[in-house]
Amino acid sequence: MSRFIGEESTSAGSKCVLTDSPTWIIDPIDGTCNFVHRFPPVAVSIGFAVNRELEFGVIYHCTNEKLYTARKGQGAFCNEERLHVTKETGIKNSLILTEIGPKRDPATLKLFLGNMERLLSCEAHGVRVIGSATLALCLIASGAADAYYQFGLHCWDLAAATVIIREAGGFVIDTSGGPLDLMSCRVVAAGTMQLAQSIAQKLQTIDYGRDDD
Amino acid sequence: MSRFIGEESTSAGSKCVLTDSPTWIIDPIDGTCNFVHRFPPVAVSIGFAVNRELEFGVIYHCTNEKLYTARKGQGAFCNEERLHVTKETGIKNSLILTEIGPKRDPATLKLFLGNMERLLSCEAHGVRVIGSATLALCLIASGAADAYYQFGLHCWDLAAATVIIREAGGFVIDTSGGPLDLMSCRVVAAGTMQLAQSIAQKLQTIDYGRDDD
Repeated sequence: MSRFIGEESTSAGSKCVLTDSPTWIIDPIDGTCNFVHRFPPVAVSIGFAVNRELEFGVIYHCTNEKLYTARKGQGAFCNEERLHVTKETGIKNSLILTEIGPKRDPATLKLFLGNMERLLSCEAHGVRVIGSATLALCLIASGAADAYYQFGLHCWDLAAATVIIREAGGFVIDTSGGPLDLMSCRVVAAGTMQLAQSIAQKLQTIDYGRDDD
Repeated sequence: MSRFIGEESTSAGSKCVLTDSPTWIIDPIDGTCNFVHRFPPVAVSIGFAVNRELEFGVIYHCTNEKLYTARKGQGAFCNEERLHVTKETGIKNSLILTEIGPKRDPATLKLFLGNMERLLSCEAHGVRVIGSATLALCLIASGAADAYYQFGLHCWDLAAATVIIREAGGFVIDTSGGPLDLMSCRVVAAGTMQLAQSIAQKLQTIDYGRDDD
């Protein structure tokens, strides 16, 4: 039997644990704040895992009619066009995406803004914040930006996008520099492992707990 | 005879002064850093002023085939759909757009990030950074976000968008709270004067000089 993990079922009290069972990991609306304000980046994200391995991902950019898809070993596509990440290796001159995250207490804001300051001080070309983690990750897969990082996102923001970025040639890791932990609420993604690691080294950790706690 | 003001002619040494003559104020590529990285928000901006009054504005979102147009007294449109700003009056719960600006020295970054912190501390729903001032301003005109502010933008980023926002029912002012000065390199735009003034009061000034100096 297939299992489901999603923002709505979790808010309703379902336990958010990845098992070996075939599991759909779903965010029906990513970019909820954008959606409320009619700010365009809004997406549906559907990931699928078996034996705790991500097998495929589908993300639909609702306001732009772009369908991002990837299956393990089969490449990543946007409306049937093959996707490729950039090959940028350093923070200098790179374009980096992030999201503010849900916690807004003074200490969290200082860490969030401090991280942005550290990357801009390394002469990143720019930092962009579009309000949808899944679509930001799709832009990394598309080669439209070099890297993404965030604290405070959930497994349903990451599952589909992780397959898409990896199939586009990119890397998705934990902010510690170690392997991605889908339930750890933190991520760095980039076109190259070198850039992902450089960003991970610069970041101050913001504690958001875990999805499976 | 018509005069021209634009980023390219100004970089080439032309004087950037608004006179009573009919004047085209043009940015052939707004979102240059985005353009270099193939990050989607990129636009052409064409404004027209006579007797120092902005008369019409045209902004073309190149990667999205959206044409924003407005003529003084005739309303604002996107691909022939009439545009209307939001009626949000307070920072709390508003969606606010900004851009980082070209100066990245430590003191400027502190002021930029401090301004973002002040607005998020007032419980703004979110801050977005898309990398194109003109398109961010078009999103305010479209009612997709409530306000925009920036230090370090130029008259060619503002001219067309100012007509479009005003014709969509919004307000474009100086960060001091006074009337817009097209050459002052700073702006607050919002759907309501109350929100524009509230944001202006919160901002620390970042000095970028003037376009006509």
